[in-house]
Parts: sequence; structure tokens; C-alpha cells
Amino acid sequence: MRDTGRDDNDNVRHNDTGGYRGAALRALSDAGAAVGDSVVITYKDGTRRAGLLMPRYEHDDDSHVVAKLSSGYNAGISIDQISGIAVDRRGTVTDMGRDGGAGTESSEPARNRAGERILLLSTGGTIASRIDYRTGAVTPVLSASDLRDSIPELADIAEVDSEVVISEYSENIMPEHWLALARRIDERAGDASAGGGRPYAGIIVAHGTDTMHYTSAFLSFALAGLPVPVVLVGAQRSPDRASSDAATNLIGAARFIASHGGGGDVYVAMHGGSGDDAIACHVGTRVRKNHTSRRDAFETIGGSPAFVVSADGGISSAAASGGPDGAGRPRPGPEYSPRISLDQRVALVKYHPGYDPAHLGHIIDSGCRAVIFEGTGLGHVGRAMYGQVERAGERGVFMGMTSQCIDGRTAMTVYESGRDLMEMGVVPLEDMIPEVALVKAMWAASLAEDSDGIRRIMLENVASEMSAR
Amino acid sequence: MRDTGRDDNDNVRHNDTGGYRGAALRALSDAGAAVGDSVVITYKDGTRRAGLLMPRYEHDDDSHVVAKLSSGYNAGISIDQISGIAVDRRGTVTDMGRDGGAGTESSEPARNRAGERILLLSTGGTIASRIDYRTGAVTPVLSASDLRDSIPELADIAEVDSEVVISEYSENIMPEHWLALARRIDERAGDASAGGGRPYAGIIVAHGTDTMHYTSAFLSFALAGLPVPVVLVGAQRSPDRASSDAATNLIGAARFIASHGGGGDVYVAMHGGSGDDAIACHVGTRVRKNHTSRRDAFETIGGSPAFVVSADGGISSAAASGGPDGAGRPRPGPEYSPRISLDQRVALVKYHPGYDPAHLGHIIDSGCRAVIFEGTGLGHVGRAMYGQVERAGERGVFMGMTSQCIDGRTAMTVYESGRDLMEMGVVPLEDMIPEVALVKAMWAASLAEDSDGIRRIMLENVASEMSAR
Repeated sequence: MRDTGRDDNDNVRHNDTGGYRGAALRALSDAGAAVGDSVVITYKDGTRRAGLLMPRYEHDDDSHVVAKLSSGYNAGISIDQISGIAVDRRGTVTDMGRDGGAGTESSEPARNRAGERILLLSTGGTIASRIDYRTGAVTPVLSASDLRDSIPELADIAEVDSEVVISEYSENIMPEHWLALARRIDERAGDASAGGGRPYAGIIVAHGTDTMHYTSAFLSFALAGLPVPVVLVGAQRSPDRASSDAATNLIGAARFIASHGGGGDVYVAMHGGSGDDAIACHVGTRVRKNHTSRRDAFETIGGSPAFVVSADGGISSAAASGGPDGAGRPRPGPEYSPRISLDQRVALVKYHPGYDPAHLGHIIDSGCRAVIFEGTGLGHVGRAMYGQVERAGERGVFMGMTSQCIDGRTAMTVYESGRDLMEMGVVPLEDMIPEVALVKAMWAASLAEDSDGIRRIMLENVASEMSAR
Repeated sequence: MRDTGRDDNDNVRHNDTGGYRGAALRALSDAGAAVGDSVVITYKDGTRRAGLLMPRYEHDDDSHVVAKLSSGYNAGISIDQISGIAVDRRGTVTDMGRDGGAGTESSEPARNRAGERILLLSTGGTIASRIDYRTGAVTPVLSASDLRDSIPELADIAEVDSEVVISEYSENIMPEHWLALARRIDERAGDASAGGGRPYAGIIVAHGTDTMHYTSAFLSFALAGLPVPVVLVGAQRSPDRASSDAATNLIGAARFIASHGGGGDVYVAMHGGSGDDAIACHVGTRVRKNHTSRRDAFETIGGSPAFVVSADGGISSAAASGGPDGAGRPRPGPEYSPRISLDQRVALVKYHPGYDPAHLGHIIDSGCRAVIFEGTGLGHVGRAMYGQVERAGERGVFMGMTSQCIDGRTAMTVYESGRDLMEMGVVPLEDMIPEVALVKAMWAASLAEDSDGIRRIMLENVASEMSAR
């Protein structure tokens, strides 16, 4: 794990250079302008553009200033083309997304006039990254405070403290990182002194999208019953791209927390459609990344998102919008008693025609304590697997069944194959998503001594990971 | 493989007992009624019901007759309650689904007045199964001819020959079965004498739904360019249930073949929605079972189904309905030159946080020739895997990357991780579905001597398995 130190530089806006240097910094200094100011830039051809001065990052060139225009686009403007920069309003915030409030019946104002405090924990990922223009590749560089400062709208919703916990793209986030993140959330969630005398209304976790749903599942189990909501937020497009969803997702998450009014579930907040008009808050155990690149890649499986934050700040719940079976709706949580532990001796086995049972044999021999099958259809693996399945049962390995169909519920009493497998000890896991079942099994294995103990925890609905039949 | 003999009993309707025996058989014999006849049954209380006499199956009791009512429901009527059975029309077919024709612009008549011939190959699965009322479980029993005879509507669309190739639920269908099925299709597709002097207009394969999309992918590759279409059909509900989709799916497939007019792609035909009103024909390499139990469980990934057969028999194509990116639309096929072979030394590795790289090590050591990664996001695995990935490359193992997001396209040049993996020899497989990539790799490995050869085949778009960017 790298870079787990806390970033205490919580007030950079007018105290540092916002990442500018050289000619660009001199031009801004001459104008008395700083990051976060509303400025009017006059071009040498006489045209003028108003915008919000954005921060730049370490390796950027020194010949451009970046302003966020009212369209939401970031424009990089060459110093050579600028004849003047005038500060319009100092360190204020834009009006983007503030009008409205005439939403659906279930809408309520998202901004919290009482001045809620939110903690923003950064773990890395696209949401905290930028494009390297030399290579065209995206690399992680933003600190949590950079991220917060580049989205001044956040300040109007709540006071935001920020902290870097991890700095990894999510394909490199490991179960050990889940533990570190859960421990930090647990410490900070109840830490009133850190919140300026008031506890945080909620915690935002900026996270890479690749494995965000695995992390949200772990936090859901380990921190079940936490008094404040935890909202994981990612971006499918990096913050320096015009189409970036970083700002809209973060703003949506902050609005959701500010209006949530207590209750500590774990959510994933991402675009709810291809436009910028709705941020969906998915229950952390019912969500999956179902597209490689779309901004609305995350979907609640088997239902609607628990909440949707609309562009006007209104928040509607799935109960109002009528999800099909309640899969996306949070349930009342248990009393808070964090169980932050896991045992990685768990494997996910996706069955397919031609799967070599010897691979399952190796998994058993390697000392796995639990196997989650991603079976076919209602929860099947072929007869060719039965020898190793029986052996796993005899060795006391917990075996849980999910479906590679992803949507729908396992039902192992319908066909002979399912009943055979149940007799060998395979436990159908209702409509638990395979990835969530894997994470839960790692958690359960750390809490239970044997297969029966794991089974009991797996079948207990801890964090809405299973929906009612 | 069991029961691969051909079922030559092609004309059972009036020559056998239709599965009836004992008291039920006597009652039908006394009335001169046989399976397939339209009958009017008079109850002892004087009420009458009209219906189509359905076949029964080996282990059924001998005290009921089963009639398909005009509602589409099958009614089991106790002999004790029947005072008389009268034959209304002998061996004709029902009028279900025949009216109409006034469809969309792209509609064309589905029934082929020229009397097309279709070959129905049965492999087992729910579509060829029934519920055991003692245990409540579903077991495979129907022969291909039973299936055809239980859906007399088929006879109005085309002359249907039937044959049992395999009798397995699809979780037990193995790559060896794919070979047997492909060989039989290849033999029969061009066999004019078997088609009564005319070649078959197309071949329907009745298949269990669990792994139907794996089989359709293999047939797509092995039989690319086949002169006639092959349509795999399954059922999510068994034929003796009121909600069964067996008949509607088979009828839709037959209509599609009868109106297809040549061109031999492989399709999967299943319900296109929750009603009975549309049967979707998905391209065999772009389809996936995405729900455990819904009748419309199968979906074209990244696009619309290639064709939709509506209840009125009209057929619309994706070109007309405007699929987003053409993923579901068939492309012109190559000349037919079947390559019916595979090499099972291929593994599918689904990466997740906490995946033990030793499992990949075991796969490499077991002699695998190709590994298909189901990576995260745009196509990533964590750094912890790099050691084994490098070793696989050094050992000449082909490595292809797909995404566990399922939808969307891999893009490995965007992030450092992807570029690292490409340098180690991992090949991004565009938007190929992971299961399809697995099947294609088994096929490619049998045709190529080394990793480079496999790579060339994997990147060639053989059967619409990749869509245009």
C-alpha cells in the first residue's frame, strides 16, 4: 500500500499556486487571481470568456490557464492569447445546478443550510487522475484536496475535509486495502473533533471504478450499521476531460449525504443515465459495473437504484419510483458493531463447458476455506465437477452457489443437477451477485471457524445483499 | 454421450398411442381420437370443452387425457369426469397465432407456402423435459418427435423432420457434444435425400438454456458460412406448464427459418419480452443468458436482436429497429468450409481483488494453450498477477483480454495497467463476450500451432463475434 499518509493541506485555495507555475503563474499573480475565483478572461482579439479558475497539476506546462466555463467544460487557454484577466468574484462558487427544487413529489432540498460536514477519502482511480498528454495514458495524481478544490460547488453543499487513504487504480486495490479503508472510515465516522466539533454527516470515498463494487460490498459487511452513510464515487472519464463525470458524481454524492438524514448504509453514486441529469445511488451490495466505458456503467441488479439525485438537487427514492422487487432499496441496518476482518482463502469458480475439474482440485488443495461457484442458469455445474465438489465437501470447504446470469435468483430444487449439488453440500445463495458473494465469503470465513459457521453468515442478510423472494 | 441414435419415428401422430395407456388410452380408442385431433370433451356435468389432444409421456398415470385449450393452457382431465369425447377435426392444427400479417414495414409473411422443410435436432434441456410430479423436479424425457407433435402449429409453417442427437441438460453439455452436434448439422444441412429430395431450409436445435450461448458460439465458428440458418431454441419453463415458452419459441424459430431466404448464420431464438408476443433471434456469438428464470433471459450484448418474430408472424430486422451499433446484426458469411474441431486446453480466468495468482500458475502448469482473462473495467488485472502473466507469455500461452463488465469494449491503451499487460503479450479482444472468447479460443487452439496462430484467428471476425468500433 502506498501513500496512506493523511493529506492535511485542507485550505489550499488561496494559499498556494493551485499547481500553476512559470508564465501562467505570473499572469495570474499579476491579475491577483487565484484558483477558485470567478474570472473574466479577455483574449487579444477582444473576445471575453467568463469562467471559474481551475487548479493545474504538477507536470502541466506553464503556458496555459484552465477555466471551467458556464457550459461545464474546462477550457485550457494559452497565455499568449490572453490580453487580460479580471477577477469577478473572489473564491466564490459557480451557480451550476443550483436553480430548481421543483422536483418530483419525493424531492427534498439537497443543500444543507445547517452546514453539514463531509469527509472525502481518496483511494485513487480515474476520479483522481489526469491524462499524460505525452503518452495519452491516464495516471493517478490528484490529492483529495486537489479534487475537492477543483469542484468548488462542494463547498456550497457541505464543508468538506479531505484525506488520501490509498493511491491506487482500482484494479490494484486488494483486500488489504479494503481493511485499511474500513478502519479509517470507522475511526473518522465517530470522530467529532476531526469534524470541527460535529461528527461528519457522511463519508465520500473517491475510488477507481473497476473494482468499486467489490470495495462497496466489503464496506457494507464490515461496517454494517455505521451511523453515517458511506458513498463511493468514481469517474469513468478523468477530471480534465470535457465529458468527465467526476464533478457531477461527487456533487451528487455530497447532496445525497447532506439530505440523507442519518442511517449508515454504503452506496455507490454514479451517473444514472447517459446525460448529466441524474446521479444514481446504488446499494453497495446490489451494484455491478456492467459496461466498460459508459458513464452509467453501474447498475443495481434486480431493481432500481435506491436513490436518484436529479440535476435540480431533488432526491427521489426507489420506493417512490417503484423498483420491481426492492432489491435496490436499503433495509434498516443492525446496531453498529464493526467487524473489519477477512480471510482471503476463498475462490470464485466460474463454471463453463470444458472447465477442467483439476483446477477446482488445485483450489481445494491450496487450502481454500470457501468456494463461490458462478454456476450456469439457476445454479448448476456439470456432472464432470461432481468428484471435486464431493471432495471439497468432505474437506470442510464451504460451497456457495450463485449464477453467471448475474440477474435473477438461484433455484437448485428445480432440476436434478441442482438437487445433486445441494446433497453434496452446495448452498444456493438466493440472488446474491457472484462478486458480492465472493467478498462476503472472505468476510464470513474470518468470522467463522468452520463451514457451518460460514454457511450461517452467508445466509444471513447482513446488508441487503439478498432481496426478498 | 448418451442416446445419439437417430429417432426415425417421424410420423407418430396416428400410428402410436401418443403416450396414453390403460383407461385413458381405452377412452380415446373408443372415441376414435388420437393425438393431434381437435376434440370436444363432454364432462359428466354436461359442460363441454374444445381442445387439441396432446401427447402424454411414459410415466404419466393412465387416468387423464390432456388437451390444449384455445387459451393455450394444457388441461389434464380425469377420465372419471368425462362422459364423452368427440373428434371435431382430425389431425389438423390450431389457429393460434395465424391471423395478422399487417406488421411493420419490414414484415414479411412467415409461413412458407412452398412447403419448406426444417430439421429439428434435439439435445435435451427444459424444452424437451417435463415435471416429475412426485418430486417436483424437471427431468428430460421428450424425444424430438414428441416435441414436434406436441406443437402441431409447426406443420403449418414447414415440414419438420426430427432427430435426437444428445439427451442432456445443458449444464452437462460438454465441448465433445458441440463437436457431435456440429458434425450432425454439417452432414444433414446438405443432405437433400434426407429432406425428401429438397435440402432443409434450416435447422432448429432444441437445447437447454444454461449453456445454449456457449454451444451457439461454437457452431457459429465451426460452421461459419453454412448455407442454411441454424437456430438454437430453448425453454425457460417446461412444456407441460401453462407458462411454457417451448411452443412459442419453436414456432418463432420455424417462422424465422421459413422466411429467412438463405444465408447460414447461427442464432438463438427466445422470448424477446415478458409476454408471448415477440421471439427475438440473437446472433449466436453476441448473445448471453442474463437472467436465471425470466423467459426473456437471453439478450444480445451491445445491440438489439438481429431479428424479431412478432406474434402475427411478421419478422423485423435490427437494421429496421435500429440497434445501437450493429452488434446484433449478422454480417455476410464466408464461403462454407466447416472447421469442426477444438482443443480444450483453454481456461477462463475471472480476475477479482484477492485472486490468488497461484491458481493461474496451476493453469499454466497444467498445459493450457490459451487463457482468456475476464478482467475488470476496460481490461485489467492487478499487479499481483504480473508474475504469472509474464510466465504464461514466456511459455507461449496465448492470453486474450475480455471484460467482466460484459457490455462495452476492452481498451488497454488508456491506463498504465492495460499497457503493461499488452507489453506482456495480453491481447485485447475488442467487445467479444468472455464466454464467446473462451469458446473461440478452444476452436482457434485446435487450428493453430502456436500462440501467434491463435492470436491471428482470435482477432479475425469470423462470425460477428466482434462489432465495429
